[in-house]
This record gives sequence, structure tokens and C-alpha cells, in this order.
Amino acid sequence: MKDKLFLMIPGPTPVPETVLLAMAKHPIGHRSGEFEAILKYCYDGLKEVFQTKNDVFIYAASGTGAMEAALSNLINEGDKVLSLVIGNFGNRWAKIAKSLGADVQTIDKAYGETVSVEELKAVLDADVNKEIKIVTMTHSETSTGAKNDIQALCKLVQEHGALSVVDGVTSVSAMEVKMDEWGIDVLVSGSQKGFMIPPGLSFLAASDKAYAVYEQCKHPSFYFDWAAHRKAVRNNTTPYTAAVNLIFALQAALEMLKEEGMEKIYARHKKHALAIRSAIRAMGLKLFVEDDNKASYSITSILPPEGISVPDIRSGLKKGYDIIVANGQNDLKDKIFRMGTLGFVSERDVLTAIASLEAVLYKLGYKFELGIGVKAAIESMK
Amino acid sequence: MKDKLFLMIPGPTPVPETVLLAMAKHPIGHRSGEFEAILKYCYDGLKEVFQTKNDVFIYAASGTGAMEAALSNLINEGDKVLSLVIGNFGNRWAKIAKSLGADVQTIDKAYGETVSVEELKAVLDADVNKEIKIVTMTHSETSTGAKNDIQALCKLVQEHGALSVVDGVTSVSAMEVKMDEWGIDVLVSGSQKGFMIPPGLSFLAASDKAYAVYEQCKHPSFYFDWAAHRKAVRNNTTPYTAAVNLIFALQAALEMLKEEGMEKIYARHKKHALAIRSAIRAMGLKLFVEDDNKASYSITSILPPEGISVPDIRSGLKKGYDIIVANGQNDLKDKIFRMGTLGFVSERDVLTAIASLEAVLYKLGYKFELGIGVKAAIESMK
Repeated sequence: MKDKLFLMIPGPTPVPETVLLAMAKHPIGHRSGEFEAILKYCYDGLKEVFQTKNDVFIYAASGTGAMEAALSNLINEGDKVLSLVIGNFGNRWAKIAKSLGADVQTIDKAYGETVSVEELKAVLDADVNKEIKIVTMTHSETSTGAKNDIQALCKLVQEHGALSVVDGVTSVSAMEVKMDEWGIDVLVSGSQKGFMIPPGLSFLAASDKAYAVYEQCKHPSFYFDWAAHRKAVRNNTTPYTAAVNLIFALQAALEMLKEEGMEKIYARHKKHALAIRSAIRAMGLKLFVEDDNKASYSITSILPPEGISVPDIRSGLKKGYDIIVANGQNDLKDKIFRMGTLGFVSERDVLTAIASLEAVLYKLGYKFELGIGVKAAIESMK
Repeated sequence: MKDKLFLMIPGPTPVPETVLLAMAKHPIGHRSGEFEAILKYCYDGLKEVFQTKNDVFIYAASGTGAMEAALSNLINEGDKVLSLVIGNFGNRWAKIAKSLGADVQTIDKAYGETVSVEELKAVLDADVNKEIKIVTMTHSETSTGAKNDIQALCKLVQEHGALSVVDGVTSVSAMEVKMDEWGIDVLVSGSQKGFMIPPGLSFLAASDKAYAVYEQCKHPSFYFDWAAHRKAVRNNTTPYTAAVNLIFALQAALEMLKEEGMEKIYARHKKHALAIRSAIRAMGLKLFVEDDNKASYSITSILPPEGISVPDIRSGLKKGYDIIVANGQNDLKDKIFRMGTLGFVSERDVLTAIASLEAVLYKLGYKFELGIGVKAAIESMK
């Protein structure tokens, strides 16, 4: 049905009407006092979402742009970088570091798994000469639905002396991330996720320790340059033209986030993800990340039942119920499907998704007790 | 009056209602077939606007991002770059080249002037060992309103053997720019200008000759990487998440550009700029770029009459008539004001702007024959 599309992918995510309409407003001058007031609101709000006292930069770029903005302001050719790879986005850090000429070492985990404290500790302990300058990691790994314990991992990195650089693209504004309290040095996120606005903006915050390393960087990116952005943030402006209408959207979305409050937002995402996990198990399907403690609350990866294909499930949800879920990526294509519960998602949406999934599986001939998934979800969210 | 704002700055520029409403549509999946069809339409349309057979990349970034995308995919440390600097944006090329470790030589002109064929020829002729690898230049210099004769300049660069890298941010889709016919190697532009959409997208096209130089680049930017973008364009997708709603806007705007046709768009911008120039002269004010042949058709820089200040004129236009014109930048601040006629601007808008400027100058005590500017504009556009 036209205009009925419901996005349950890990981004773009559903956008509230208020935010959509804010975006349809005529742009204003990006150097005007009116726009500076809007930027000030956004910069202040982002600090709360990032749980930091550091300045949060706004880039006119998607999430990968903010990832490049992190490493291209830190790495000199030959620098040693350790990348924790638990999926495609963990691997993207390694690729960006290599593109900048870094000497990249990785801890590679099977997709779906996470990096343990012991594993990281062993590698950092072995680095007796403290050559590792940066450790990159992913909080919520969008390609698998696994969640690294970044609080514990960043603590180890801090003890070692290296910088922790964290991809919070599908976690910041959805899952608990406390930049300052957890000692995260660089944290990035993107707009089309928990922030409830369309893609095109990304965010970066850096600690003073990271900023000191930036000051030794020989060829920081001009477009993403930290000094230019820091100066701009402190003057409630942007160094280059802001994506004005996306900033209107950001302001409207931050108002909504503020009204709900960060702790309630974290709790909502957790509740929804656990409800979906509970429903999936009740229906006799398997979760790609089995351990609830290692699972993202933003994205849940699900294996199809024996004899039923991922494309059939995705197509059934789309054609019958206008619900879009994501396929697996690369090697996981057609092996898993991924349900996002990121951002503007309510308890009703979770029930809708599970009920629709039940209907699709039923029509595809899967034998199970109809209603059992919805029952489990309701019980889980009580 | 609320919602009456009329932007006559060189970006953001006025956005048609159709485009604003396209942006307010709910995002769809950026990897869906529906979105691929939209991207295909945009990629095809951009080739026509750029007047090229080369692929045109779409970046989720503002214009400076596309400028970085040009040089960061070409320059290796120590490469010799010649930058033609006729204003702030010409200077930005030099800054980006330096940030990448290039050995930058400049031809510096007084602001308001342009680089002559003879000047460039002398520098290129002196480069007997063909050490200059890249020549950067600005077509329409937004900070001054001057226009380089890039057709002639790029021909010289081609004869020398270097690559021409051209900032077409305020010219492509407004003023005549023929990438292939004129032998431009790299051409960049931005969304919030002649394209009639809000800021947040930028575009880049590269010739085969430029692509061959890219292939020798040791550390091309990951986010802006040409190979990744070329592959994506050819598959009607983007390498990283597209700014979906801005792409909706782009599609709507390209439909409008297509309907009008490039030659008519060029003629319209020329007609409007010449009408404003004619009106300004009739009112006894001075143009910062006096020679019509060296003036941009996108932006006109005007000196205030003796005894009347730029801030008073800008404030009078804003408070009395809801019209925003730009101040001068840096050294030109409060010395000139700049009127944009870029993008979604009609003959009526030109008359409105001149009539309002007359009213403001009259109220500020400037002595002139009321109506003479409007008369000159009407006669010029007949």
C-alpha cells in the first residue's frame, strides 16, 4: 500500500512527522544569527546524547565520513593501529586506517562474536614498547547485531595508553554509551539511526588526549579538520556550509530525545530488542547472537527456519505488510535477516513486526503455534 | 513577516516547493530497488548538467567536501600544484593542496580580478620540466563575483599536460560550463546553488586523464574514493549511505532543470545578472567587478554609495523587505554586499530585489532618481 512503508532496517530508520516537516522548511542563511541559535541548541543537545563535556562536531557526511574524520585527524604514515574486527563495520575501521598508511594489526572474530577483555588484554600486554597508538572498535556491529563491551575494552586501552576510537553509529542515542565516564577518546555516530533523522549528518567527539594526538598529525583532512570544527562549534557555526535542512531536522529530533530523556531511551531500546529476541526464541527460530549480553539493542540478526529462505521472508514482509528488514551482508547474505529497532520505534511497532513475521512464516509453511511470538513479546515487555 | 524570507545570497538559494516537499517524504532503504531507480535518474541527469560523458559522483558532503574529494584522490606528498587565486574559494584550493602535502605555487590576483590567459601561459611556459601536475581554478568566484575564463585557461592547462581542477560550485547548473568540450579534467559543484536544493550534497566528475592520475595516488581518501564511487555509479548505488532525502530533492530539482533545458538556464542567469548590473549602474552605484565579461552571472558584488554602510543596506533589506543579501568576506567585509541570482530565481525576483534596494537606499538618504534602477532592469530584460 502506498505510503505505508515501515523501515525495520538498521538505517535509514523511521522519521517522525515533526522531523520530516522541519526538513521541508525553506532553508535560511547558514551564517545568520537565526541559524547560529539553532546550531547552539544542537551542539548542546549532542553533548547530552554523547554523555560528554567534549565538543561534538557535526559533519555534512554520512557515518563513514565521521569514521574517516576520526582516523584522518590522528594517523601519520606508519602509525600502528589495532582494529577489533567483529563484522563489516569493524573491518571498515581497518580499511580506513590502511588507506591512511597505518600499520594495521587486527583481532579478527567470527561474525556474530565479540572481543573479550582477555583477548584485548593479551594483545595490549604483548605491546611492551607501547607501539600501538590507536585501538578501533565497534559498539553495536550493524552487520551482525553483536555488541562489544566497550566500557571494559576502552578501560584497557586507557590503561595501555593508546587512544580508543569507537564506532557508535548504531548505538549512540539508542544504547547506553557514556563517553566521558567510560573514557572513550573518539566517538562517532550518524543521523539516520537512533537520532531519527534521514542520512546525511554524522557526529564526532574527541577527548583532550585525542586532541593532543591530532596536534601531531601531519596531514589532517581539510574538510573534516578537528581544529576548524572545534573553533566553529565554540562560535555556534560550522567551518563549511552546514546541511541546513538536516540541521532543522536534528533540532526537532533532539527536542524529542530531550523530552524522553537518555535513560528512558536506553531502556526502551533494550526492552524492544529483548522482546524481539524472546519472540524469536518462542517461535523456534535461532538468533545469530545467542547470548543476550552480547547482543545489540539496535539490531537483531535472525536465522530463517530450516527450509525457508531469507529472500522469501523479506519479500513476504515487504509485499504483504510493507515492512522492510535487512538481508545479511557479504558472506551472511541470505543466511540471516536483520531487524532494526533503532530510533523512532514503539512497543506497538515491535508487536506489529512480530505479528507480521508470524503471518509470513505461517504462509511460507513453517509449522509453529501461531501467536506464540506475540505472546512472548507481550510478556517480555510487560 | 514570518515565512516571507527571500534568499539572495550565493547559497543556500531559494528552493522550489516541489523540492521542499520531496524532502519531507519518509526515507526509503538506500539499498532498495526503488532507490536505485532514483539514483539512476540522478546520475543520468547530472551528466547533462555537467555536460559530460564522465560519471558524476554524488557525495554526502557540502562543496568543500567535493573540493577535498578532488585533490585527495590526486595528490601525493611533494606534488607540484599551481593554484589560481582570485578570491577566498580559489585560495581554498591552495589550502587543501597544502594540507595534503603538495608543493603549492599560486598566481595571486587582487580580489575582483581574474587570471588572464597571458598570465597563466607565462607560468606554464616557465615550467619547462613539466613539474606542475595540477592547476586549480575557480569558475565563478563566490567571494567577489568575478568569473575566470575557464574555457581558455583549461585549454592552456591541457596543452601543458597538467590536470585542470575546477570549482564550479556557483557556476555548474547556472552558467555555461561544458566539461568535455572545454577539456576540464575535474569539475566539482554543490547542491545549494544552481541545483535549487538545500546544502548537503556535492558532485564531482573526473576525466579519464584525471582517473589515470588517481590510480597513482598513494593514499586516496576512503570516504571520497573515486574507484569506490565510480563502481557505485555504474551500479546505480552509492558506496556509503546516501543522504536519501536530499537525493529525493535532487531528483525533483533535476526534473525541473531538464524541463527548462540547460541553454535556457544559462540564458536566464545571464539575463538576470546583466539586469542587476544595469540597474546598479543606473542608480549610480559601483560594481566590484566592473567588466561585464569578467563578471559571474550567479553573484554580483556591489559597493555601497558614499556615506551609506553595507550593514545598513543589509539590515534595511532584511527588516523592511525580508530579503537576505550577503556581506563581503574577510577583507571585503562591510566593503561590498553580494546579491545572488542563482538557481530558482525569476525575472520577477530581480525586479523585486532592485525595487527593494531602491527603497532601502532612499530611506537611508541616498539621493537618486527613484525608479531608475527598476527602469534599467526592465529595459535590460526586455
